[in-house]
Amino acid sequence: MQAPSRVLDNIISLVKAIPNYQQALGIGVGVPGPVDTVHGEMLMATNLPGFEHFPMTRTLEYALNIPCYLDNDANVAGLAEALVGAGKGKQVVYYITQSTGISGALVVNGKIVSGRHGHAGEIGNIVIDRNRQKYNHLNVGAVENEASGVAIGRYGRQFIGDSVKNAKDVFDLAHKGNMEALKIIDRMAYDFAMMCADIAHVCDPDIFIIGGGVTKAADLYFDKMQAYYRTLVHTGMRDMDFVLAELEEPGIIGAAMLPVSYGV
Amino acid sequence: MQAPSRVLDNIISLVKAIPNYQQALGIGVGVPGPVDTVHGEMLMATNLPGFEHFPMTRTLEYALNIPCYLDNDANVAGLAEALVGAGKGKQVVYYITQSTGISGALVVNGKIVSGRHGHAGEIGNIVIDRNRQKYNHLNVGAVENEASGVAIGRYGRQFIGDSVKNAKDVFDLAHKGNMEALKIIDRMAYDFAMMCADIAHVCDPDIFIIGGGVTKAADLYFDKMQAYYRTLVHTGMRDMDFVLAELEEPGIIGAAMLPVSYGV
Repeated sequence: MQAPSRVLDNIISLVKAIPNYQQALGIGVGVPGPVDTVHGEMLMATNLPGFEHFPMTRTLEYALNIPCYLDNDANVAGLAEALVGAGKGKQVVYYITQSTGISGALVVNGKIVSGRHGHAGEIGNIVIDRNRQKYNHLNVGAVENEASGVAIGRYGRQFIGDSVKNAKDVFDLAHKGNMEALKIIDRMAYDFAMMCADIAHVCDPDIFIIGGGVTKAADLYFDKMQAYYRTLVHTGMRDMDFVLAELEEPGIIGAAMLPVSYGV
Repeated sequence: MQAPSRVLDNIISLVKAIPNYQQALGIGVGVPGPVDTVHGEMLMATNLPGFEHFPMTRTLEYALNIPCYLDNDANVAGLAEALVGAGKGKQVVYYITQSTGISGALVVNGKIVSGRHGHAGEIGNIVIDRNRQKYNHLNVGAVENEASGVAIGRYGRQFIGDSVKNAKDVFDLAHKGNMEALKIIDRMAYDFAMMCADIAHVCDPDIFIIGGGVTKAADLYFDKMQAYYRTLVHTGMRDMDFVLAELEEPGIIGAAMLPVSYGV
C-alpha cells in the first residue's frame, strides 16, 4: 500500500472511532510545507514521501462524507492564535514561528490568506541583508539563515566554539553575561526586526504574534527587537503590539478551526 | 476659513451640482498619505496643510447625508485595478506604483487591507540593501530611494553627469545603448525585484499589477525584473503574473468603488 493511503487510512479509522463523528460539520488538516488549498493537496512534502499532489482532502471526504480543508501548519497555528489566542478580535494578524526555521501566517478578518501558491507566510526566505553567506536553497541573507534557532546555534559554534551545540547553549551563555553570545543575540534581534518591518510595510498588521522555541529566550531579545523595529518603520507605525503566542497546541486548534474559517 | 473647510465646501458644492446626487449609495475619497479608515481622517497631510486628523468623512456625511469612505490614493488605485482592471477576478492582488516614489496596495477578495495604521502598502520603505546611502527620512536602502523615478534620475546625474535631468533622460540614453544608463536600470530592476520577492513571501499574491510613470520604460526592464524575481523566491512561487496597470484613472475609479468594497 502507498504510504499516503496508509496514513490516510489511519486518520480515517481514528475519525471513525470518535462517537457521532458523522455530526462533525467539517474536518481541518494542517501539514508542513506549502499547500494547494483549492485542490486540498500538499505542494511540497519533504518529510512525507508520496504526499506531493496526493488528493488528501478528496480521499478523506470520500471516506468520511464530511467536508475537509487543508492548510499549512504555520497557517493553521496562526489562525488559532488569530481566532482564540493572542490575536482575538484583531482584523489583520501576522503570526510568526521562530523555531528551527522561521515561518509565518497572514490572517485577515479570521481567514488565512494562503496566496496563489500557498506560499504566503514563507517569510523565512525574506532577505534582510544581501551581504551574508550562502548556506542552502534559501536566499543569501534570508532571515531564516540569520535569526532562526538553527542560525543562532551556528553562529554560536562559529564565534564561541564547538562547546556550543545549539541556540539554547547560546542563550545560557548570554544569561551568564558572555559577550559573544550577547552579540549574536543582538544581531539576531536586529535581523528579525527588519523582517517584521518588511511585513509591516506590506500589510500593516494590527498585531504580531510570535511563537516557536526561540521565544523561550524572549527575555533576552524581545524588547530589544521591538526597539530596533521602531527605528525601521514610519513614525506613524511605531506603536505596534508584539505579543508571544498564547496557545499550547495552536496547530491542532487551528486545523480544527479551518472549516469555520471557510464559513462551514 | 480653515483650508480644509474651504476644500470640503468645494467638494460639497461639486457633489450637489450632480443631478440626483441624493440617490448615490456612498461617496469614496482618495487622498495621498496614510489614512485612518475607521475615523475617516488623514494621518499625514504633507501637501494638504490642516487636513491632519480633520474629520473629513464626518464633515461630508453631515453636509450630504450620504455614507462616506476614505482611503489612501495608492490603495484606491489598487482597488480599481483589482476590481475592474488588470486584477479582475483575482483573490489576492498586490498593486504597486513605481513613480516619483514607490507605494502599493494589498487587496484581498475585493477589499483593501489598510492595516492598523493605514500604512499597508507603504512598501517604499522596505530595505532591499542595507549597504546604501542615507538620503531622507526613509530607511537606508529603502527601495523608494533605489528604484523610484527620482532614484533613477539621481543615479543618472551621479554616474552619467549633470546633463541628466530625470529618469526619462536615463531611459532615453539606455535606448541609445549608453552603458552607464543600462547599468543603472539593471540595478533598479534587481532592487525592485527584491521588494516584490519580499511582498510575495509575506502574502503570495495572485498577481502583481505595476503602474506609475516609470513603467512607461517597461520595455527596458520589465522582463529582466521578472527574471531576477524568479531567482529570489521559492521554486514553487516562480510562476507569477506581473502585469502593467490597465486603467487610465485608477484613483478616481477606485475612490468611487470604495463604498462598494465596504458592502454599501
